[in-house]
Amino acid sequence: MSDNWQYSRRAVAMKSSIIRELLKITQKPGVISFGGGLPAAELFPVAQLKEAANKVLTDNPGKALQYDTTEGYKPLREIIAERMNNLGIKCDADEIMITGGSQQGLDMVGRVFLDEDSAVITGRPTYLGAIQAFNAYNPHYITQPSDDDGFVVFGLEELIQTHGPRLIYLVPTFQNPDGKTIPEERRKIILDLASQYGIPVIEDDPYSELSFEGEVPKHMKAMSPDNVILLGTFSKLLAPGLRTAWLIAPKGDAYNRCVRMKQGADLHTNTFAQHVVYEFLKTGALDDHLVKIREAYARRRNIMVKLMKENFPEEVTFTEPTGGLFLWVTLPESIDTTELLPKAVEHKIAYVPGSAFFPDGGGKNSMRLNFSKPTEDEIKEGIPRLAQLFREAIGG
Amino acid sequence: MSDNWQYSRRAVAMKSSIIRELLKITQKPGVISFGGGLPAAELFPVAQLKEAANKVLTDNPGKALQYDTTEGYKPLREIIAERMNNLGIKCDADEIMITGGSQQGLDMVGRVFLDEDSAVITGRPTYLGAIQAFNAYNPHYITQPSDDDGFVVFGLEELIQTHGPRLIYLVPTFQNPDGKTIPEERRKIILDLASQYGIPVIEDDPYSELSFEGEVPKHMKAMSPDNVILLGTFSKLLAPGLRTAWLIAPKGDAYNRCVRMKQGADLHTNTFAQHVVYEFLKTGALDDHLVKIREAYARRRNIMVKLMKENFPEEVTFTEPTGGLFLWVTLPESIDTTELLPKAVEHKIAYVPGSAFFPDGGGKNSMRLNFSKPTEDEIKEGIPRLAQLFREAIGG
Repeated sequence: MSDNWQYSRRAVAMKSSIIRELLKITQKPGVISFGGGLPAAELFPVAQLKEAANKVLTDNPGKALQYDTTEGYKPLREIIAERMNNLGIKCDADEIMITGGSQQGLDMVGRVFLDEDSAVITGRPTYLGAIQAFNAYNPHYITQPSDDDGFVVFGLEELIQTHGPRLIYLVPTFQNPDGKTIPEERRKIILDLASQYGIPVIEDDPYSELSFEGEVPKHMKAMSPDNVILLGTFSKLLAPGLRTAWLIAPKGDAYNRCVRMKQGADLHTNTFAQHVVYEFLKTGALDDHLVKIREAYARRRNIMVKLMKENFPEEVTFTEPTGGLFLWVTLPESIDTTELLPKAVEHKIAYVPGSAFFPDGGGKNSMRLNFSKPTEDEIKEGIPRLAQLFREAIGG
Repeated sequence: MSDNWQYSRRAVAMKSSIIRELLKITQKPGVISFGGGLPAAELFPVAQLKEAANKVLTDNPGKALQYDTTEGYKPLREIIAERMNNLGIKCDADEIMITGGSQQGLDMVGRVFLDEDSAVITGRPTYLGAIQAFNAYNPHYITQPSDDDGFVVFGLEELIQTHGPRLIYLVPTFQNPDGKTIPEERRKIILDLASQYGIPVIEDDPYSELSFEGEVPKHMKAMSPDNVILLGTFSKLLAPGLRTAWLIAPKGDAYNRCVRMKQGADLHTNTFAQHVVYEFLKTGALDDHLVKIREAYARRRNIMVKLMKENFPEEVTFTEPTGGLFLWVTLPESIDTTELLPKAVEHKIAYVPGSAFFPDGGGKNSMRLNFSKPTEDEIKEGIPRLAQLFREAIGG
């Protein structure tokens, strides 16, 4: 009887997250959600993807529907390498492994580097999905605080010396959840320490091509290729349902171990989707598409920020990211955004409480808002509701 | 520098398999390979899949390209539940989780049940991919021998009492690698013990719908739903490149933990592929397709077995499976099929050495042959070459 089955310690430890349960209550009709992290479905380049799928199943169905190597479809890896080189990241196809979304890249990183109770350095806040991935390997988290420039480096060397971490995990550009970007000087300090102490930096990079204005700093992988594993993905650039992402690791042990681990995990990523993405990329349509979604997301962010400035009580502060999908709101310390969520739902509005992004506690008075999924009309309707909620919470 | 990075114990322990390295030498022009486990690409129902892909991207692109729930696309789970019920397996959509191939199902099972040094019971031989998946969690293997009816039950209870295994892993029908099927009486004995001692049976079931003649025994999941987790897949029934498979687990902790683990591993399976498979299934085309591939594979097996009988030296024995993709050849004990492989490549022929399927040693004088991928002509050419190799090996 399954009632008597004995589960692994990691399975028993992994409770259903309170956040996940809370977010269920937000899925009510009429609720405007700033809670998700989804790209705008109405902007997917459907016609071009349909053409790509047709071409794949006309020209090469035997290969596109068959098993493939664990590393991934070679022409796709080559065209990604080309894109990466154009972005200043020197690499070739043999350093790239295709993953089933960057979430799987995170799982592979955990699997390759983490033993029970290994130390992982992250910022606070940091990306929730990374914590979920790494938790399968039962590590513990050591966190550095954030300032306006994201991950703070003061004290990092001491942390490394004290805890001997297996990896440093960062979303350096337009971080999920707070939209912050680590400047180049700070990246250099982190990389120098990583090099000195022999610690891999995991550069989780889903958003750097979604920059609305100005230059983004150099990729950490470009600055110091041998000290960084980069995770890239088409989920936000193209469509998440295709679950096609990539990991770039230094040749040798690092890359080979990622591949061996993925072989045991799922043999290889969906061949059909890999071929479809390749055909789409080959047409050059991605660059036009990126122009389109950058414009749309910038417009949504602009409307959101403008309305926040006009409507939010002055005690409430927020980030104004120049790219990505998210911004971060900080309320007075007396307010707990997790406790506030049911009330938000009464106001027909939803967000993700900030504490979800703090692996070792904190962030109770903050929240993450998404501006890629809600339409302009939803933003115009939703932000005043949120402002009203804040006024009531602060007033009471 | 990545040269100084510290890896997890599991990553360091997982060497590149000797088999994998050996199989690389078999990928030479002119070599006829019985080594793989691939379905016949020329039989893929390409036209229907193209129609399905078109329909998906016409009717529902916003959903098919977007993030989905970890459990999987609900209509697909419903249609799988219907298929399962027609096969005698009572279940509903809420017990089914879509996985990225059954290899990921195996990974989830390992993740949910195995701690370091947990005991796993398998047969010898057993499916290599399961060992690779479970190895990420550093278990140890306790194995039961095989007779003509597969996994032997004599001594199983003592093994359970001695080692307290976390799970019993079986491919009960047309097992990879030896094509053997466990009869119903034996299944019942295993299930009674599993129930008595509270141990999940993992029924890995990729081949039961590829039966060429006669009835297959009842699924273990049908005989004892609450003691079994079933893994099913479209890889052999439809196309492996779609990486669409499923896991059926008892409601409650077992199912919920699988879902939570998958969320950390890759959020969810490829949405586009799930929608395409669903549209394909909805047309009813799978049943016709199954008739077609059963006939083709049966023909290939018949030719292979006939030629083996005519050509192999009498010291060589082999199984004659009534379904699936594989048969198993046993040579005199003095012959090591791993050592023989380079010579096989000289004869322009390839196979998988049997020892790959013995998690705790043995099987040196055996090999797995695949009859789904090679064409009839390749079989007619390849089996005499193999016979010649055997004669030389036995003679020398």
